[in-house]
Amino acid sequence: MRTGIATVCLSGTLKEKMQACAIAGFDGIEIFEQDLVTSSLSPEDIRKMAADLGLTLDLYQPFRDFDSVPEDLLAANLRRAEAKFKLMSRLGMDTILVCTNVGTATIDDDSLRAEQLARLAGLAGDHGVKVAYEALAWGKYVNDYEHAHRLVQTVDHPNLGTCLDSFHILSRDWDTTPIEGFSADKIFFVQVADAPKLSMDVLSWSRHYRVFPGEGQFELAKFMGHVVRAGYTGPVSLEVFNDVFRQSDVERTAVDAMRSLIWLEEQSAKWLDANAPASADPAAGTAGRRRYPMELATLPQVAEPAGFNFAEVKATDPAGLEKVLGQLGFEFNGRHRTKDVQLWSMGHARVIINEQDPGVTGPAPAIAALGFDVDSPVIAAARAQQLKAPAVPRKSQADEEVFQGFAAPDSTEVFLCQGSPDGTAAWTREFGEGLEVPPAGGQNAVIDHVNLAQPWQHFDEAVLFYTSALALEPQPFAEVPSPSGLVRSQVMLTADRAVRLVLNLAPVIQQDGADSGTAHRKTYQEHIAFAVDDLVETARGARDRGLDFLQIPANYYEDLDARFDLDPAFLATLRELNLLYDRDADGEFLHFYTATIGSVFFEMVERRGGYDGYGAPNAPVRHAVQYDHLHQPGRST
Amino acid sequence: MRTGIATVCLSGTLKEKMQACAIAGFDGIEIFEQDLVTSSLSPEDIRKMAADLGLTLDLYQPFRDFDSVPEDLLAANLRRAEAKFKLMSRLGMDTILVCTNVGTATIDDDSLRAEQLARLAGLAGDHGVKVAYEALAWGKYVNDYEHAHRLVQTVDHPNLGTCLDSFHILSRDWDTTPIEGFSADKIFFVQVADAPKLSMDVLSWSRHYRVFPGEGQFELAKFMGHVVRAGYTGPVSLEVFNDVFRQSDVERTAVDAMRSLIWLEEQSAKWLDANAPASADPAAGTAGRRRYPMELATLPQVAEPAGFNFAEVKATDPAGLEKVLGQLGFEFNGRHRTKDVQLWSMGHARVIINEQDPGVTGPAPAIAALGFDVDSPVIAAARAQQLKAPAVPRKSQADEEVFQGFAAPDSTEVFLCQGSPDGTAAWTREFGEGLEVPPAGGQNAVIDHVNLAQPWQHFDEAVLFYTSALALEPQPFAEVPSPSGLVRSQVMLTADRAVRLVLNLAPVIQQDGADSGTAHRKTYQEHIAFAVDDLVETARGARDRGLDFLQIPANYYEDLDARFDLDPAFLATLRELNLLYDRDADGEFLHFYTATIGSVFFEMVERRGGYDGYGAPNAPVRHAVQYDHLHQPGRST
Repeated sequence: MRTGIATVCLSGTLKEKMQACAIAGFDGIEIFEQDLVTSSLSPEDIRKMAADLGLTLDLYQPFRDFDSVPEDLLAANLRRAEAKFKLMSRLGMDTILVCTNVGTATIDDDSLRAEQLARLAGLAGDHGVKVAYEALAWGKYVNDYEHAHRLVQTVDHPNLGTCLDSFHILSRDWDTTPIEGFSADKIFFVQVADAPKLSMDVLSWSRHYRVFPGEGQFELAKFMGHVVRAGYTGPVSLEVFNDVFRQSDVERTAVDAMRSLIWLEEQSAKWLDANAPASADPAAGTAGRRRYPMELATLPQVAEPAGFNFAEVKATDPAGLEKVLGQLGFEFNGRHRTKDVQLWSMGHARVIINEQDPGVTGPAPAIAALGFDVDSPVIAAARAQQLKAPAVPRKSQADEEVFQGFAAPDSTEVFLCQGSPDGTAAWTREFGEGLEVPPAGGQNAVIDHVNLAQPWQHFDEAVLFYTSALALEPQPFAEVPSPSGLVRSQVMLTADRAVRLVLNLAPVIQQDGADSGTAHRKTYQEHIAFAVDDLVETARGARDRGLDFLQIPANYYEDLDARFDLDPAFLATLRELNLLYDRDADGEFLHFYTATIGSVFFEMVERRGGYDGYGAPNAPVRHAVQYDHLHQPGRST
Repeated sequence: MRTGIATVCLSGTLKEKMQACAIAGFDGIEIFEQDLVTSSLSPEDIRKMAADLGLTLDLYQPFRDFDSVPEDLLAANLRRAEAKFKLMSRLGMDTILVCTNVGTATIDDDSLRAEQLARLAGLAGDHGVKVAYEALAWGKYVNDYEHAHRLVQTVDHPNLGTCLDSFHILSRDWDTTPIEGFSADKIFFVQVADAPKLSMDVLSWSRHYRVFPGEGQFELAKFMGHVVRAGYTGPVSLEVFNDVFRQSDVERTAVDAMRSLIWLEEQSAKWLDANAPASADPAAGTAGRRRYPMELATLPQVAEPAGFNFAEVKATDPAGLEKVLGQLGFEFNGRHRTKDVQLWSMGHARVIINEQDPGVTGPAPAIAALGFDVDSPVIAAARAQQLKAPAVPRKSQADEEVFQGFAAPDSTEVFLCQGSPDGTAAWTREFGEGLEVPPAGGQNAVIDHVNLAQPWQHFDEAVLFYTSALALEPQPFAEVPSPSGLVRSQVMLTADRAVRLVLNLAPVIQQDGADSGTAHRKTYQEHIAFAVDDLVETARGARDRGLDFLQIPANYYEDLDARFDLDPAFLATLRELNLLYDRDADGEFLHFYTATIGSVFFEMVERRGGYDGYGAPNAPVRHAVQYDHLHQPGRST
């Protein structure tokens, strides 16, 4: 699959955009006109730079408001088009995007439109230019891709073809199956964009909220499947208008974009395989994709992870973490034989404390890394690498287990571990004397979920990252009120719920002169939640060992009683132990939080029945109490 | 008018919110349930704190999903309601908001609904509570305020009345006139919110985009006029769900909120005067408002400003500014006789350079203050003060003119000056020998517009501020692409265009670890634009004096020619002098920019015919060139 991207997707100057696209590995780019007009580079400079960078210049765009106009305006439009054709010749470009008219169309007549498009195609032919005609979802008379394609067929000129843009088609919920019936030689260009399903006017949705494939909710693999079946072999090019991407680091965004196409290519091949026509040889699993001329590369295949292997917290002073883990009932399993790390565990829940050099003034305790159980760490690492995940070197002595790892968009390190059927981990032998699982006298526990704060400019990137590299499934996002603003919360999970990762986009109160960049992690705390079988017992033990629980306000329990009409003895237990409670049609959820150490805290949970949530109605209580602690002068956090 | 605000409008804890409301001068508050549930304050603490702060507790809200349910669910809902009634008794509150059912309604039957509401009203009566029933715009069966009020009338119970919320009514475009027919004793509460007109689902619009009155596009004065005519005298209370306000400084937002109600009160009185019924005594100008029991205070009245009196730029090293102003053709008029400030002018365009103490490492040159010509500076200052604009002290010697001034939300100082019919300013006598206007040999000029960067968390506040304190009119906002992202641009102007102020919300590229707070002004440059009669002559003079023009790319002129088919000689002149050009149905616009000094640059413009814009199609070119300069290592900015 030939990959492309429109320069409008990225921040920076045209030169910066082109360099970032080359670094990210794109085959070609679309030149968005404004990027050229505002550039100090001449067309010849741009042509040479693209050649030097190994980028093809695939599409000049957009040319607006051409058709369905009176003759005098048409003449002016043809003159305007000719100027652009001449410019394209200097750029060495041969395809221009012409959108259906939005602003100046006054005549709704398909035969007139066809005649006007024929004149444009003739002029384009004189200049060696191909016109790719695209139906904008909000075009005045032509806003349906099949309508635009009928005009292309009517004109039947070698220099006029169709441009298919997934946003304009899927935003209107149009069936994409008819694409298969289009002649490949009449599809001049294919643009792809994903988007969250929003109920708003299509123009605003398109201009601000498009995202890269895999970051939204459109059925893009199906769209691409039909395009491939039509026989199209040209570029598949991203055109994503997104307010955040336009102000994010250009190289970072280009890599995110490239990852989305690599993933889409794989998904498209899978869709073709899964939807192979009956005539295909059923013995050939890849028959679906092999019948068509577009070459579709795939990636090393991984199943979803079988669980969390460990969570790692870093600290220059580990005393606070040691104390809280001990109070929760974790056992100290020893220090690593060669590294400054400690292992703590409760059954299959393993926490590594990574002691940072105390000579350096380091950050307060924070979540540093997560280990996931996978079938094959090597294959999973190969997949992640092909998806352009930055590898993380893990120093190791001979005879110690080497973890394959990479950095997630928020810089959390993700390690791929060899899972075991009984939930143990071989590497724990490198600590102390080895472990008994479950430890004598203690409860069993597992990591239930991990809640990570995401910088706002990397939120969509993180969703695609965990989807593509770790095979987690994004759930519909929720918004949780906090005293600092709404927290956007996105759950990513495996089908069996063995891994639940919660990505939170956290606001920061904007006090004038405050530094919102570095304040981010400081204010929004991350946590690791452990599931146990008997939360009341766990809480009693922790209380007896002196744990500093997050103190839940009395008002909460009164509201809880008003909502759920609880048994008084049960309510008294919740109140006594600072437990929170939720209930839905599937089951019940009990949980409590520790106070925060640095930027990390812990949660203990018990799931009863089929309860599948995270106590969302209780999240505002947690946020409010944590905010209160953070803003109380003199209180240690 | 009794003023109120719902705690959900603000950031922080309940305690912080209540304190901020008291400081801002509200009469009362609505307690949003979540703020109470998450608070460590007991109901008795809250009651005492409100009393100590002089705040009445006007409304407990919301109580959701009560009516239109089967009997078993109704029993649970009544139990839930009774728990809240008891809580309200501890809080000393007597009114609760009950919304029409969204989530659990299954029976669409008005007589059943009336019966269920009657049972609720009876229970409320037992506890001394009044139920204010509100139609949510997305209520399942009841989503129209007249429908909700018919139910209230049917039940006809002293403890059941209507709550009117301007958002739920105006978002659905419902006529507000019928409110006048409601009995005052059946309107239990009135909530006001403004909003920009957005085409999206009402729930998302309501939950994220409400703004304070004067910051959106709803006809709130008319809504309030009908409420006043109905005889309502209770609180007029803000309920504004806004993502930005929820994460902004709580005291700042509370003042913004209070300003919006002071302004709405005045606008409502004006609407009543302007729409007084024919039976009113035409000799009494305020007869419209005086006929009704609600007391409506008004403000000192000001006309829109007659023009800019001056612009002030501050700098520790004024050399760069002096050089550019001289090259543009400004004359140096001398230094102030007692202060470290210089005056430069070109005709009626006056620029003050305020020299900062060079011993202090101060900021790079930046726009510090704007002077506006008003009829009466004292009255205008009194109005601004009543609108809670923070006063700015202006030190002055005896016999010198004293400026009344206040700080705008972005901290630009705004001074109110006595205008003169001939465009001169008396205070200029304090500089050198006085001025000849227009200066011999030079062109005349005026300040055409000033373009200020706004911090994102104060953008809506700034719109209301200039609307209410300076009588500027907000225009529909535009979005301009720049290499750092989309710039949101809001023009505020006087009807005669003598004052044009452009408020820009500028993005900042988010490089990891960068400090977006302080980077804000550094990256986004502000400017002062001067209008002259002959821009080509001005540009030639400036070029001959060696001005460093913002260099416009050659590609721009080719695109300009493609779009406008310009006379070749004219195009050559534009190109030669780095002039930009725009044209619309009303006229033409020529302009050029200087290079940037610190965070400020200058623009010279010529308006031909009735051109009323700012060359918006050219703004991306300016942004791109300025971005390029800022990011070229070694280039001085």
